[in-house]
Amino acid sequence: MADPKTPEPSRRSERSRQAILTAAVELVGEVGYARLTVEAIAARAGVGKQTIYRWWPSKGAVVLDAFVELSGGSQPAALPDTGDLKADLEGVLRATVQELTDPRFELPSRALTAESQADAALAQQFVEAVLRPHLKAIQERLRSAQRAGQVAKGVDLEVAVELLVGPLFHRWLLRTAPLTSAYADTVVALAMAALRPPPKGR
Amino acid sequence: MADPKTPEPSRRSERSRQAILTAAVELVGEVGYARLTVEAIAARAGVGKQTIYRWWPSKGAVVLDAFVELSGGSQPAALPDTGDLKADLEGVLRATVQELTDPRFELPSRALTAESQADAALAQQFVEAVLRPHLKAIQERLRSAQRAGQVAKGVDLEVAVELLVGPLFHRWLLRTAPLTSAYADTVVALAMAALRPPPKGR
Repeated sequence: MADPKTPEPSRRSERSRQAILTAAVELVGEVGYARLTVEAIAARAGVGKQTIYRWWPSKGAVVLDAFVELSGGSQPAALPDTGDLKADLEGVLRATVQELTDPRFELPSRALTAESQADAALAQQFVEAVLRPHLKAIQERLRSAQRAGQVAKGVDLEVAVELLVGPLFHRWLLRTAPLTSAYADTVVALAMAALRPPPKGR
Repeated sequence: MADPKTPEPSRRSERSRQAILTAAVELVGEVGYARLTVEAIAARAGVGKQTIYRWWPSKGAVVLDAFVELSGGSQPAALPDTGDLKADLEGVLRATVQELTDPRFELPSRALTAESQADAALAQQFVEAVLRPHLKAIQERLRSAQRAGQVAKGVDLEVAVELLVGPLFHRWLLRTAPLTSAYADTVVALAMAALRPPPKGR
């Protein structure tokens, strides 16, 4: 689509794309999802509205892509597998705490979570595009631990993932208490006890 | 305040109070918290605006009282203590699933949760008035189990409560998967393993 005579069109495109995604995330945090417009994103990014519509069909599509980018891309790195399940889980839960309490991330995420309460379709897209890849990455690490005999055979790994991240989101969304690394570590310690194979009987 | 000549004034007052609280909850679910007005509550309840202001200082105060009422009052019953911790926790988590998926409760709760993302003061009042009493009731049941030697001594009971309810709210708020009684039971089974005293070493 880019004019072949424009110097370095792909670099210019990439710069515009980044500016649009950054503007989208900032504006969601500032005005909320419902009041966000493609016009406002274009103005903040310094591009024309038609540039946005060339790449995305709707404001929802821009915002979702922006969140995917913000949370590390559509293929988040697999968790490190050091053999030490506890350390690996502490690492990912601490990183989640960092992200949830990072001002760049917190306001836009709260705005999108708020909108998701009223808009089930947006919620579903958000879960599939942004959350699910991260939950799956944790699940894969648990599966490798289960194969290594560090997690009991019968454990439903999908539920195990929510046992780890659920308490973090509970604090973050409902603001029951401060969300800290120490809390993440305590949740990991409890979850480790929940998941490990029984000593023998019972 | 009631006219002493009015027959049964307290019964009439109570009827108005209930009508106001019901109208507040219904309207939050229908129009969201931000667009809710005291006028609309009064109209739906069939009372004058001044009747509402006689009892509550603001729309926020009415809505909070309505949610306290909806979720069983400001002093929720203590959990049953049958001696069987697993059964008692399954009971309370299944009841939570029931409540979260009850249409009377679901839409208004999502609306208030959404508004709480943008309004930290409302969030704090909601947590203290509506959520905290329930979390405390679960914590008390865990404390009695800890005293009975069914929960390990070192466990932080505040975190243990969030290990139980966090995964439920995670599913409900983020809609990662259907919220069912079977899921509640699986969470209880994992949490029981997390909380029980270690057999001996390790």
